[in-house]
Amino acid sequence: MKDYKDIYKEVDRKIKSIMTSKRYQHVIGVVNTSSKLADIYGEDVQKCRIAAIFHDYAKQFTKDQVQQTILEYCVKLDILEKDSIQLSHSKLAAEIAKKEYGIYDEDILNAISFHTTGRAYMSMIEKIIFVADSIEPGRKYPGVEAVRDLAFHDINKAILMIYKHTITHLLNSDHKIHPDSVTARNYFIDKNKEVNI
Amino acid sequence: MKDYKDIYKEVDRKIKSIMTSKRYQHVIGVVNTSSKLADIYGEDVQKCRIAAIFHDYAKQFTKDQVQQTILEYCVKLDILEKDSIQLSHSKLAAEIAKKEYGIYDEDILNAISFHTTGRAYMSMIEKIIFVADSIEPGRKYPGVEAVRDLAFHDINKAILMIYKHTITHLLNSDHKIHPDSVTARNYFIDKNKEVNI
Repeated sequence: MKDYKDIYKEVDRKIKSIMTSKRYQHVIGVVNTSSKLADIYGEDVQKCRIAAIFHDYAKQFTKDQVQQTILEYCVKLDILEKDSIQLSHSKLAAEIAKKEYGIYDEDILNAISFHTTGRAYMSMIEKIIFVADSIEPGRKYPGVEAVRDLAFHDINKAILMIYKHTITHLLNSDHKIHPDSVTARNYFIDKNKEVNI
Repeated sequence: MKDYKDIYKEVDRKIKSIMTSKRYQHVIGVVNTSSKLADIYGEDVQKCRIAAIFHDYAKQFTKDQVQQTILEYCVKLDILEKDSIQLSHSKLAAEIAKKEYGIYDEDILNAISFHTTGRAYMSMIEKIIFVADSIEPGRKYPGVEAVRDLAFHDINKAILMIYKHTITHLLNSDHKIHPDSVTARNYFIDKNKEVNI
């Protein structure tokens, strides 16, 4: 198995060649932010960096590339993902990480797979990538500063704020909402009521 | 089997005695509005009136009454419904209509059961009760007039506007969102793109 640092360098070179510089800057923002979050929450920094560098690998794929990846790697997509690169790119990137780069760590693969919708019972690395994707320095939306502040001391509350922002955005722009997102939000509403003794 | 008009009178007397006059006025608003919608969309007016008069039967039940109804009629509730009378009252009312009043018409029972969350592939009577509940004359919220206007000439578009309003309200008040609601909203987004020739 290759070293994570070698894989990181390889993927970094690759994505630089297949995405716009704006998208690449976003990815590097997620790498750096997820490293900081990993430090704070005691998560493995190398795993977070790997998940982050991969997370948008397929975001700018053409329809043909999407179709080819689905067929080549037998990617299973649900009905909403089949219809939308906004949703499918997470699942495609996880398959590419596994099949083309030999990443078999389930935590890394899940963090890539669920970085867009999130899900109930997310692991810490999943939460870190989900949150870093929404608060990296390039992100600008109303309330982003409050989410950024919260992310570094209460990641579960930050996740709820992110859902509020993203679901509101999807509602106002008449886009579909993935049921996983509301199920996850319901889970974090309960999670945030838990008393930490 | 009793006549629907007799059942209506019986339920009308009963609910007047178990709910506040404000809630009762809302129910009568839903009865009248659903009758008008039934006329426009060619649905059975008597069935709509029966579904409407029953729809909030259990809304003001105490916790003991909820528990008793669940046990007595073996009502199956999902995890969100178990936690919230806002969601469970629809299911309880449908069971009461069936077990205490002998209503076996599935269209009526479904219209009562799904009047809060809605669902994908709603029948016309389900849509009518769902919409009437949101636009009866007593309802006041920003944009209600636009939904009212739309309801009488394009019920599917009205349903999308209702979801936008209710999901936004749930987000802003930090309440849980039932996944059935977003699945239904996704369905109506597609439905509204269909070309009617």
